[in-house]
Amino acid sequence: MTVPDAYTAEPWTVREPRPRLDILADSESVFALSNGCLGIRGTFDEGDPNGMPGTYLAGLYELRTMVYTETAYGQPEATQTLVNTIDGTLLRLTVDGQPLDLRAGELPHHERVLDLRAGTLTRTLRWCSPAGRHVDVRSERLVSFVHRGAAAIRYTVRAVDEPLEIVLTSGLVANRQQPHLPTHPSSADLLQHPLDPLEHHVDRRRLTLLHRMHRSGFVVGAAAEHLVDGPDELEVHVDSNDDWARLTVTARLEHSQELTVVKVLGYAWSGERSVGAVRDEVSATVTAAQHTGWAGLVDAQRRYLDAFWADADVEIEGDDELQQAVRFALFHLLQATARAEGRAIASKALTGTGYEGHTLWDTDTFVLQVMTALRPEITRQALGWRHATLPKALDRARRLDLRGATFPWRTIDGEECSGYWPAGTAAVHVNADIADAVIRYVEATGDDAFARTAGLDLLVATARMWASLGHRGSDGRFHIFGVTGPDEYSALADDNVYTNLMARRNLLRAARWSRAHPDDAARLGVDAAEIDDWQAAGETMAVPYDAERGVHPQAAGFTDQPRWDFAGTAPDSYPLHSHFPYLQLYRKQVVKQADLVLALHLCCEGFTAEEKARDFAYYEGVTVRDSSLSAPCQAVVAAELGHLELALAYLAESALADLRDGERDSSDGLHVAALAGTWIGLVAGFGGLRQVDGELHFRPALPETLRRLTFRLRHLGRALRVSVTPEEVEYALVDGEPLTIRHDGEEIELTADEAVTRPAVRTTHHDAPAQPAHREPRRRSAPPA
Amino acid sequence: MTVPDAYTAEPWTVREPRPRLDILADSESVFALSNGCLGIRGTFDEGDPNGMPGTYLAGLYELRTMVYTETAYGQPEATQTLVNTIDGTLLRLTVDGQPLDLRAGELPHHERVLDLRAGTLTRTLRWCSPAGRHVDVRSERLVSFVHRGAAAIRYTVRAVDEPLEIVLTSGLVANRQQPHLPTHPSSADLLQHPLDPLEHHVDRRRLTLLHRMHRSGFVVGAAAEHLVDGPDELEVHVDSNDDWARLTVTARLEHSQELTVVKVLGYAWSGERSVGAVRDEVSATVTAAQHTGWAGLVDAQRRYLDAFWADADVEIEGDDELQQAVRFALFHLLQATARAEGRAIASKALTGTGYEGHTLWDTDTFVLQVMTALRPEITRQALGWRHATLPKALDRARRLDLRGATFPWRTIDGEECSGYWPAGTAAVHVNADIADAVIRYVEATGDDAFARTAGLDLLVATARMWASLGHRGSDGRFHIFGVTGPDEYSALADDNVYTNLMARRNLLRAARWSRAHPDDAARLGVDAAEIDDWQAAGETMAVPYDAERGVHPQAAGFTDQPRWDFAGTAPDSYPLHSHFPYLQLYRKQVVKQADLVLALHLCCEGFTAEEKARDFAYYEGVTVRDSSLSAPCQAVVAAELGHLELALAYLAESALADLRDGERDSSDGLHVAALAGTWIGLVAGFGGLRQVDGELHFRPALPETLRRLTFRLRHLGRALRVSVTPEEVEYALVDGEPLTIRHDGEEIELTADEAVTRPAVRTTHHDAPAQPAHREPRRRSAPPA
Repeated sequence: MTVPDAYTAEPWTVREPRPRLDILADSESVFALSNGCLGIRGTFDEGDPNGMPGTYLAGLYELRTMVYTETAYGQPEATQTLVNTIDGTLLRLTVDGQPLDLRAGELPHHERVLDLRAGTLTRTLRWCSPAGRHVDVRSERLVSFVHRGAAAIRYTVRAVDEPLEIVLTSGLVANRQQPHLPTHPSSADLLQHPLDPLEHHVDRRRLTLLHRMHRSGFVVGAAAEHLVDGPDELEVHVDSNDDWARLTVTARLEHSQELTVVKVLGYAWSGERSVGAVRDEVSATVTAAQHTGWAGLVDAQRRYLDAFWADADVEIEGDDELQQAVRFALFHLLQATARAEGRAIASKALTGTGYEGHTLWDTDTFVLQVMTALRPEITRQALGWRHATLPKALDRARRLDLRGATFPWRTIDGEECSGYWPAGTAAVHVNADIADAVIRYVEATGDDAFARTAGLDLLVATARMWASLGHRGSDGRFHIFGVTGPDEYSALADDNVYTNLMARRNLLRAARWSRAHPDDAARLGVDAAEIDDWQAAGETMAVPYDAERGVHPQAAGFTDQPRWDFAGTAPDSYPLHSHFPYLQLYRKQVVKQADLVLALHLCCEGFTAEEKARDFAYYEGVTVRDSSLSAPCQAVVAAELGHLELALAYLAESALADLRDGERDSSDGLHVAALAGTWIGLVAGFGGLRQVDGELHFRPALPETLRRLTFRLRHLGRALRVSVTPEEVEYALVDGEPLTIRHDGEEIELTADEAVTRPAVRTTHHDAPAQPAHREPRRRSAPPA
Repeated sequence: MTVPDAYTAEPWTVREPRPRLDILADSESVFALSNGCLGIRGTFDEGDPNGMPGTYLAGLYELRTMVYTETAYGQPEATQTLVNTIDGTLLRLTVDGQPLDLRAGELPHHERVLDLRAGTLTRTLRWCSPAGRHVDVRSERLVSFVHRGAAAIRYTVRAVDEPLEIVLTSGLVANRQQPHLPTHPSSADLLQHPLDPLEHHVDRRRLTLLHRMHRSGFVVGAAAEHLVDGPDELEVHVDSNDDWARLTVTARLEHSQELTVVKVLGYAWSGERSVGAVRDEVSATVTAAQHTGWAGLVDAQRRYLDAFWADADVEIEGDDELQQAVRFALFHLLQATARAEGRAIASKALTGTGYEGHTLWDTDTFVLQVMTALRPEITRQALGWRHATLPKALDRARRLDLRGATFPWRTIDGEECSGYWPAGTAAVHVNADIADAVIRYVEATGDDAFARTAGLDLLVATARMWASLGHRGSDGRFHIFGVTGPDEYSALADDNVYTNLMARRNLLRAARWSRAHPDDAARLGVDAAEIDDWQAAGETMAVPYDAERGVHPQAAGFTDQPRWDFAGTAPDSYPLHSHFPYLQLYRKQVVKQADLVLALHLCCEGFTAEEKARDFAYYEGVTVRDSSLSAPCQAVVAAELGHLELALAYLAESALADLRDGERDSSDGLHVAALAGTWIGLVAGFGGLRQVDGELHFRPALPETLRRLTFRLRHLGRALRVSVTPEEVEYALVDGEPLTIRHDGEEIELTADEAVTRPAVRTTHHDAPAQPAHREPRRRSAPPA
């Protein structure tokens, strides 16, 4: 690589040995801390320089009017935008009158370390001020997994070699000045000042701000409590104003003397409760965290993560970068989801404002696929949020002249926020994706109570939508016309194969579950005739096939389209959507992201092995991977077909998207679905895991460059560990009753008594298919040892 | 009708016998005066009450940022919005201290008359003030066809029965307060104050304001000169401020005494010239008009219109409403186009701000079709405007990765202003529509100079676009995929028949003209290979056909779509786009406006008579006419197929859209294309006119309810008059050299010596096809005598 890596490859940490001011916003995403409820980007304590500072609360948004030059029925009138809420990170240091700023003076040492086991971000630095004064700073930051609304910072200043006059200002700031966001030029003004002040007060060493969102009306509050430890003679002063509150510590540090401030932060917000209720909840949160204390918070954090890693860790031998990347991925997946508890899990989680903080199908299809295997209770919570938005989805369906429910393409609270319906509302597959997450969760957990309540509600509502959206053609098949599949370089096509196969599963499972739970189905007004309709629609679902070319078209007619002129497209014209209009992209065979190939994975039972091989080869030739959702899907199918080195290349592309790849932009948040894709590529790819009708199927195969892959998962209350080498695989039941699994089709009963070993699968090797010019994935034939 | 008609049916006037405060905005559109450069809506002199006051200058727009929640390559960043400029209509009257307001006091008499021969709007009223004072007012208003930037008002007040203290305030007002516009809620704020003041001055009886558009930067100026005639003792006072200037006349009128003010208005604007240049042009315009004087202006207006009617009048015997309607239509078409001279002709002309004042394909396909036959020099000017925007269209094509030119879907100055590309930029047929207008103009005039210059430029640039947009399929045909035809209830379809047939003509004529003018073609870089490409693409153009159903699908696959549930759609659910999302409309067989049926008319040579009959019957069953562009096209094809009463019903729907029909909304401007459609329905419908390869073909057939239809047109420098009765048709060459025409296929040479008579055509009568439930046109079997 021409640009040196920002981070060293270590198994349990992400270490930035030198500050990289050129990619500040990216590193703020990488170093973001979150518990799924509260997220804080990895900004420097002193505030400046910064990329895009942000503190976010899941579900807390401002409204923004959408202006259309051509209004149309059904367009959302406003979008919801995740906003930077009250910022509690600021600890500004003045050393003998010089403000600490990395761009001034000298910096003999500066290191940041994200510890994936401790759940803390640690920063150590030595600064030589422009006046030649030396100071050491150590700051540690955490967002607590245990205390949902709480975060804490321990900040220590040390005089290195001579006495120093120190002023440390700890702030709470609302409407913190944001940099210009080129991605949202038109919303910049609004987002600069979304919070109207309600109250500000300071009491001893506690600061509190209460604000109200200007249009959405949410009340949000934050408090900061401080424990100051240092020389006997130090002064503490507090003051506040509408948009800020601060505590100022003044001290003189002798040689080697230290000043330490522990800052405990508490947040609360509500769209329903009174200002007083929010005020008191903020106080309760910060008081509880303060009572736990810094050491207590750190201990609890470690215990929480120890438990997670025991269940979820993935070990990779032979590729240190991938080892780090998969743990980084799992850590951020946990951060994204752990305490979301009834709030949406955004596509950028709480690491940035990309996609305006919206939730898309990424969560249901990618993130929940992983969490169902690792922490199924998190999936249950997430599907519970979807279920809570069901009334809005039912309303939306009525508005769209459909029965049942249509879930939004992008949203924070369940209202459709997509302003471009051909790639939004028309991407109805999101409904089947949600249904699929429900099915996978129930079949992986046996959670019958969920299946009979929220699960059935969701399946029935989405099945009703499909039944009313599709129609029976003159060929007797059930067709779904004019919708958009996962690939965003096509739109409004007929019989998208992915959509139809997913809708088929949705319809058939709704029928099966309704028959299995007749009383619960009756509660929803489901009768035998409706069940029969779903069954018939599912069984006769149209799946277009291009017999001439021997492949499935992504949607009807796709393979008749002219092929994109890949040879005539310069390497710097990617991503194509930044250089060509949809007018051109939609009309041609060019695939942004796996669509038919995603169907090969998620609807694997719908294709023969031979079909998969031909389809994969065909779509490799027209897929450009301009979306980070693509590579993991390609990795899974490549692995299944025995293209192990190709699979590894795709896996690495996905895994390293945020940590290594200079091409991808992480400035407005991490690629959370790609992080999930890292686990999926390893486990569904090299592990060959498929959950078919509630049964776990494995077909492990590892490329020679990886010496061992060990992963863990939960299924029906059991804990499993699977360890794969290029030669063999070992299945172990770590916990729970005996379980029958399949290895390459063979039934194996696992018991706690002993692990079972089988040879790794050797798939007949097809020639590896070619990608479009300039779009070959970087091969990982010689990874760093 | 339940609501009484607003206007009486008279042959040469539109008379409103009583004020209709419930449809004020609609009558302001009907009574709008314009010359194609300056347009003034038919507001009351005293300003209030009003619907949507407006004074517009062709091409004068403000910019408005378009906000997208999902940005995409190629989206316009701003739209252009026609703005209400400086208002010169105000003449506020106070009678013994009471302001004249129709809502106060009593109104024994109030009448407005638009005189289609005089080109004036006259208003007479008697008002009894709340204090019981009686006053007579007569105002006459004109926008001069002869003085391009000028308008004038003559306002007379008369004391009826006792002496009155009169104060008359004549104003010029910038940023006149606009009512809330529900159609543009988000732009309302911006449009409330688009003009920044530059200068205001008053000099004797002349008022002048100069303003600058806030964002677009155009400088606009207006002046009002006054001639006051009344009692010897009257006082005149003038004053002004940033946004207004006024002249106040105070007088005491004795019994029967009158006060008359003639107010002459002059306008000028520029985006390039200096403030001083605009100031002087305003002065020159108003001085010249003042010098001409009221009587001179009225005389010149009458002479201009006499000449127009001599060439253009259409006489209808047997239906007074239609007689009035067709003259109303022709008058407004002249108003829309006469002095546009290098500015766009908007789809609402200068009668309102509908479509933001944008020009769409309506002008090229509908308005210019009429003007080419009546005033070909106006078409030449209009195509000259398109040609002037060619550099922008070439840029736009490059941006869209196409060769040649792509003209905007909607614009004021040539920049694309559509914010919804599937029904905007993707409706590429606009390019063929422009080419077709060029072809029709050149073949109707023999204007070889135009053909070799601007005409060839336009044909070559559009042919190049088609050649690069389409592709050769494996079937050897030339296909055009993923574009949108005229029907806005479908989008992004393959091989839209209308588009493909129009593109075929475009390609073949470009080839023919390039061969005919090799030097001019060489100037454009056209070589033999390119010409051959166009020829081949045109000759092999794909035209999908549904052999099973025996009809042409509107686009490939259209007839396989499920049919809209017409039976289940309530009458008040129309127009469908206000009650259903495009997600539903696009996927189903439902046609907003003639698309395949427009091809049957404009590309008549591409279909056999039998195909036309089957196609028309099929599309009648799925066409809902939610666009006013539809009925005229259906009228033409219905007439051709012998469904004369059905044709008459469609013709009447189009003709009466603004004058009679309560359903259609004329508040934001007239349906100019439907006005053109009135002439087209009569002449191409009942006259059976088709211009094929420069030759005029007629197949006249008149329904029994019409006793006679006489129309005039110009062709290759000749003036023709055609007079049709249900029994026979008379062709007369009014002026010019002998001309060969065709009557029902028969060649006839017309000479100035004598008219030729032939029996009317009797087409084999098919059963009249059925329309969707609730969408039958109102039959005109018993018109008012």
